[in-house]
Amino acid sequence: MPKPGDLIILAGPKGKRHLFLLEESKGLHTQDGSIQAEDIMAAPFGGTVNSHLGRPYRLIRPTIFDLIKGLKRQTQILYPKEIGYICLKLGIGPGCRVIEAGGGSGSMTMALSWFAGLEGQVYSYERRPEFSELCRKNLQRAGLGGNVRQFQKDIEEGFEQSGVDALFLDVRTPWDYLGQAAAALAKGAPIGFLVPTVNQVSQLLSGLERSDFTDPEVMEILIRRYKPVPERLRPEDRMVAHTGFLIFARQQDRDWSAEETVRPTSYHGDDI
Amino acid sequence: MPKPGDLIILAGPKGKRHLFLLEESKGLHTQDGSIQAEDIMAAPFGGTVNSHLGRPYRLIRPTIFDLIKGLKRQTQILYPKEIGYICLKLGIGPGCRVIEAGGGSGSMTMALSWFAGLEGQVYSYERRPEFSELCRKNLQRAGLGGNVRQFQKDIEEGFEQSGVDALFLDVRTPWDYLGQAAAALAKGAPIGFLVPTVNQVSQLLSGLERSDFTDPEVMEILIRRYKPVPERLRPEDRMVAHTGFLIFARQQDRDWSAEETVRPTSYHGDDI
Amino acid sequence: MPKPGDLIILAGPKGKRHLFLLEESKGLHTQDGSIQAEDIMAAPFGGTVNSHLGRPYRLIRPTIFDLIKGLKRQTQILYPKEIGYICLKLGIGPGCRVIEAGGGSGSMTMALSWFAGLEGQVYSYERRPEFSELCRKNLQRAGLGGNVRQFQKDIEEGFEQSGVDALFLDVRTPWDYLGQAAAALAKGAPIGFLVPTVNQVSQLLSGLERSDFTDPEVMEILIRRYKPVPERLRPEDRMVAHTGFLIFARQQDRDWSAEETVRPTSYHGDDI
Amino acid sequence: MPKPGDLIILAGPKGKRHLFLLEESKGLHTQDGSIQAEDIMAAPFGGTVNSHLGRPYRLIRPTIFDLIKGLKRQTQILYPKEIGYICLKLGIGPGCRVIEAGGGSGSMTMALSWFAGLEGQVYSYERRPEFSELCRKNLQRAGLGGNVRQFQKDIEEGFEQSGVDALFLDVRTPWDYLGQAAAALAKGAPIGFLVPTVNQVSQLLSGLERSDFTDPEVMEILIRRYKPVPERLRPEDRMVAHTGFLIFARQQDRDWSAEETVRPTSYHGDDI
Repeated sequence: MPKPGDLIILAGPKGKRHLFLLEESKGLHTQDGSIQAEDIMAAPFGGTVNSHLGRPYRLIRPTIFDLIKGLKRQTQILYPKEIGYICLKLGIGPGCRVIEAGGGSGSMTMALSWFAGLEGQVYSYERRPEFSELCRKNLQRAGLGGNVRQFQKDIEEGFEQSGVDALFLDVRTPWDYLGQAAAALAKGAPIGFLVPTVNQVSQLLSGLERSDFTDPEVMEILIRRYKPVPERLRPEDRMVAHTGFLIFARQQDRDWSAEETVRPTSYHGDDI
Repeated sequence: MPKPGDLIILAGPKGKRHLFLLEESKGLHTQDGSIQAEDIMAAPFGGTVNSHLGRPYRLIRPTIFDLIKGLKRQTQILYPKEIGYICLKLGIGPGCRVIEAGGGSGSMTMALSWFAGLEGQVYSYERRPEFSELCRKNLQRAGLGGNVRQFQKDIEEGFEQSGVDALFLDVRTPWDYLGQAAAALAKGAPIGFLVPTVNQVSQLLSGLERSDFTDPEVMEILIRRYKPVPERLRPEDRMVAHTGFLIFARQQDRDWSAEETVRPTSYHGDDI
Repeated sequence: MPKPGDLIILAGPKGKRHLFLLEESKGLHTQDGSIQAEDIMAAPFGGTVNSHLGRPYRLIRPTIFDLIKGLKRQTQILYPKEIGYICLKLGIGPGCRVIEAGGGSGSMTMALSWFAGLEGQVYSYERRPEFSELCRKNLQRAGLGGNVRQFQKDIEEGFEQSGVDALFLDVRTPWDYLGQAAAALAKGAPIGFLVPTVNQVSQLLSGLERSDFTDPEVMEILIRRYKPVPERLRPEDRMVAHTGFLIFARQQDRDWSAEETVRPTSYHGDDI
Repeated sequence: MPKPGDLIILAGPKGKRHLFLLEESKGLHTQDGSIQAEDIMAAPFGGTVNSHLGRPYRLIRPTIFDLIKGLKRQTQILYPKEIGYICLKLGIGPGCRVIEAGGGSGSMTMALSWFAGLEGQVYSYERRPEFSELCRKNLQRAGLGGNVRQFQKDIEEGFEQSGVDALFLDVRTPWDYLGQAAAALAKGAPIGFLVPTVNQVSQLLSGLERSDFTDPEVMEILIRRYKPVPERLRPEDRMVAHTGFLIFARQQDRDWSAEETVRPTSYHGDDI
């Protein structure tokens, strides 16, 4: 049963979901009538609470997915379709030390904090104070962030850490910070980027060729949803066609490959 | 520097990667000549080792992504493009208790073991002894599995756990085990499925409508890779067009919604 | 220069397009002011006409693509992305005799009429009088239809033609009319279908297996548009993810293949 | 029944197709035995011919789709998925006058010749003599080309026609020929391009902004095929992920829009 301070979801009969922080003596107003805080606290997760109009709302314990989808945003956020893959690709997991820069509203920060766990450490760089604050609030609201240290500074000056296990860079001109990134990463450690335009992908790839990184990979992730009707199953009419391009590479001291200019154009086409 | 028992990657000048378990006095034979175990153990991660023909191989510490891609397989495996999303969607993370069934070669088991961490617990059901054994070996080789309990039994008889945080079912007829799954899950907890054909999706959705689950969602995840050449950037000529359909739902005692038959056909079209 | 009775496009400075039938002394009212018919008739195609507020509108001669996009619709229409492919696949061209059934608003009828030319013949079946009439009007407005004969009858009773070069069936239960279709087609001639759900695809494939057709193919066509900005090139944020599934087959008297049950599951995966 | 000089398809029991020119007293050798020319000529289209081993081969009259798929190629060809859409978009049809440049092996030339019909005219420019010759042979073999005039010259010098209805440019640096193209097109007429890389798309869009063209559109067309098995319906495992980007625009004398710099970034997102 939920208690004050818990983030919960109440889902109405029509499918509408309300993600909110449960507070003592502060209920929820819905289109189906109001729901009392004490009634919520008396219900089990997975159970239902009735509104004062007698409409049943289901009480759901949000997963990290729900928390990311429900964060308060002022920026374009990273979406789960990219976040899950990035975390796997960068090897984020319990005990991991990871840097992210350009956190924005904090959707990636939340995921990193979640997967890194209490033994892990997330270093989150964000230049703009308003986003830094928003990210902090989103982490706190989600009951996350105990393992997050926020740095409100320009990464032009470099990162304060070294030997980190992974780094994720979500900034407009990532090619400007490759030296700083390589210096912060453990030797051979993976890095990830997200940029929205093909021009940025191109410029970043050029930058990577001149920097201490190797094994560049570029990809998009698309999710196509279906209407879940068994006897008339079909894809949704519309879909999100673009959020951004993902680029991955590995730190590699450049001197090594001076004369090795093989370009891995398609060496792992099935690397999905 | 790697030591015997470590899983390492040696990447050749042409991009070919060798993932293997480092053993005392047992090197690697490559197309560029052989590499001595003692040379490998003297090199730092991110550094290089020369073959006896003087060709440089980079020494890479594999991430969970590499481990999954490199497992020994006898079955169709789940791919990272699905695994990352599933783990996020099901809320897998440090301390999580999760059941999977139909593990096959163990790619999902590895990811669950990784993300759940030492405080978590993974219950892996697999009826066929040869796959159960293969999964065990793959976990061990990857240095994972300390938090995994394997059950070699038919899930027809039910799961031995209850109140688990999440469940992932990768079997041919998942609609046959919905009762068992609902009984094992915590109230309101998420469940995921993967099936390859639309006929199975349809049949599973019908099953879910009659079972203790709600909020069905169906989707595909596609990855489109690009040739990483900055001045001639273009998608790869070919891509993997299909691995399987993902279906998600939440446990919900059925009696509640007896008269609520609203079908959420498109209520979260942007839920990516 | 356009003359009364011509279908023309006037495109405003902001990109808004008006497709309409030019009539003597009947101008166009736009958000940028009104445009006189006589001014339009005095302008060359590719030139501009000023509104009474002095805003320039470009005068464009519509192509068959524009005509299809601009038709008056009361039904879901077939889109150019499917129409172009269907016409090529079915071998529609000058002099062709083709049947279509379930024409709806007439987007396919317009394309068939266009490509078949004056020596060709299009037989269009539509049971519902309101759609038959709408289709007729759309053809007339577009200056097409001279080679179209409309039949307002139920195709259950069969088609009145035989030996036609191709047939396109856009109805809800196409499997109910396979005998009628095979009887109308020339031996070995191609047939096409469009259905929106996977359940219909499955049922149609089963029907084809029992009918005088062979070489079934199933596919979807997706168009992904880009924002045409050279220095910030990227895909549009959203796209149409589904209109329908295309199915193609060839007429083939069944007796032949009685004992040949090879299923062509992937024999032309590159047949794009 | 086919006669010498006809292009025909013989399709074997396993699905293998042979597209070839039927010649007096020259049969076909297949993996199922040889087939006599006289037996073929005695069979109806849609009927079957037995090999000397008694295996039945179906006799099929090829459509324009089959002809394009079956042409002899020395270059990357345009595929039907693009050709059908391009022809519709450019308004190709009976009586049309159209220029194409960079024809290569002639797949687009064949389609233009087919759709333009006897009253139409196709002007095909190809600098390289070997491709010009290959295109000519492919047209002849397909029984097409009566309405095609080939020009083996560099389009740098301009096109010899003016006032044509449409133009399709399939060359490596299309931005170099925009002036020549605008001069050849009728006022307001449509133009199409195909280029494989995003860098070329970007450069072409920049060129279009400075030239006598407007309304740029950029898109990709994807075809996703399904295994046609009714009870186990699923997409093919792999697909062609990229052939090229399509760009379309309309001729428009530049002076008009000197001060109108509105960029139509998303005004017809549904224009599929």
